[in-house]
Amino acid sequence: MDKRPLILVTNDDGITAPGIRKLIEVMKDMGDVVVVAPDNPQSGKGHAITLDATLYINKLTKENSTIQEYTCSGTPADCVKIGIKEVLKRKPDLCVSGINHGSNASINVIYSGTMSAAVEAGIEGIPSIGFSLLDYDLDADFEGLEPYVKKITQNVLDNGLPDGVVLNVNFPKKSDTPFKGIKIARQARANWNEKFDKRINPMGKEYYWLTGVFENLDGGEDTDEFALENNYVTIVPVQFDLTAHHFIQTLNTWKL
Amino acid sequence: MDKRPLILVTNDDGITAPGIRKLIEVMKDMGDVVVVAPDNPQSGKGHAITLDATLYINKLTKENSTIQEYTCSGTPADCVKIGIKEVLKRKPDLCVSGINHGSNASINVIYSGTMSAAVEAGIEGIPSIGFSLLDYDLDADFEGLEPYVKKITQNVLDNGLPDGVVLNVNFPKKSDTPFKGIKIARQARANWNEKFDKRINPMGKEYYWLTGVFENLDGGEDTDEFALENNYVTIVPVQFDLTAHHFIQTLNTWKL
Repeated sequence: MDKRPLILVTNDDGITAPGIRKLIEVMKDMGDVVVVAPDNPQSGKGHAITLDATLYINKLTKENSTIQEYTCSGTPADCVKIGIKEVLKRKPDLCVSGINHGSNASINVIYSGTMSAAVEAGIEGIPSIGFSLLDYDLDADFEGLEPYVKKITQNVLDNGLPDGVVLNVNFPKKSDTPFKGIKIARQARANWNEKFDKRINPMGKEYYWLTGVFENLDGGEDTDEFALENNYVTIVPVQFDLTAHHFIQTLNTWKL
Repeated sequence: MDKRPLILVTNDDGITAPGIRKLIEVMKDMGDVVVVAPDNPQSGKGHAITLDATLYINKLTKENSTIQEYTCSGTPADCVKIGIKEVLKRKPDLCVSGINHGSNASINVIYSGTMSAAVEAGIEGIPSIGFSLLDYDLDADFEGLEPYVKKITQNVLDNGLPDGVVLNVNFPKKSDTPFKGIKIARQARANWNEKFDKRINPMGKEYYWLTGVFENLDGGEDTDEFALENNYVTIVPVQFDLTAHHFIQTLNTWKL
């Protein structure tokens, strides 16, 4: 790419989260950065879009800043849609989402606002990457991630991505041991074993909080969960063609 | 299956929508029906789950009714989770979601609350089907869909589904011509070309409504869009392993 690429940055934890501030810091060396991020936390919002409510955009760009920043009142997917159509008025060369405070490995990708923003950009034909750190703490330590974020992003800028594919990058929680490197992996088969925490509200009515315990059901050594447990940074190529092509032949034998 | 199957019914249009009432009517001949559906419309909610707010369940079962009915204040995915863990206290034998008022063919599956409920049940290891009619009208005509719903459901009860696969069934909008039959199809590559409808609120502030025009980018004749245009009922097998397996080999050649 001859000229500086135009990079749309978003996330699901909201524009003030340390994870997106770190991502902006890395991206400003790599291209012209425009941020369009939620004005409030949107974790677990999946690929929700706002059909039944209004959307607001607020310009936050600081004086003398080279980075344009906007908040949007909607979901991460809304941020990408409105970012492209109303803020940028053209397709960016790249979209990056994150760095999420928490895992988007294995089945978490399905519930993830971070990854839904990346997927939304992919649907629009934009090379796109979601970054996540396996640490839900707001004070999570993002130091040491920069070289990985930069290397993966530069590869996407140089090589592009095939139509219909975006990247899901996860970092192990920081420890005293440095990351062992990068592994290309597949999404582990896993689920959440939900526990509903039942309580009584001040009016005497029962209500519930959704909680759960993560269960890796996949014994494979080629999965993102396995690599992350072994202190590797993982990249899973993610597609939004959900067709289970391997089952079409069997379905055609059913008596329908 | 020797005894009557236990069937969990849900949707995203809310428990009073004509589409779910039709689905309940069909299912009550096929098994023991428990309904856990949103207490308010949840269209476009994707695979959102409720992490930052409380959840309520309300029992609506009518006296002398053989069908148990509950509303949940959360998303379609929440309904399935809380339905299994708090209402049924065991895994149902089948989960059906819909009948949605509107298309969940092609890229719509990504944004769909109807399909996210079906996928959530699939993640929990339950055979699961989402049904949708290509008519957004609340007064949509669901007559004539019953034999198809019944046949597809009976096949799933008899044959089961492989782990990780759920079915996405779409019906063409009703016309004077009867459906031509059922086609097994793949998800068409399509997107929405968004138009943001900008307005000024009474306080003088700009706001937006998300609208858009559907664009089928896929010339294939094996897609759901093609079959629906030709008046076929479509079944797309849908998976929640989002790994783009075909791109892993190339990614391994990148300088990372």
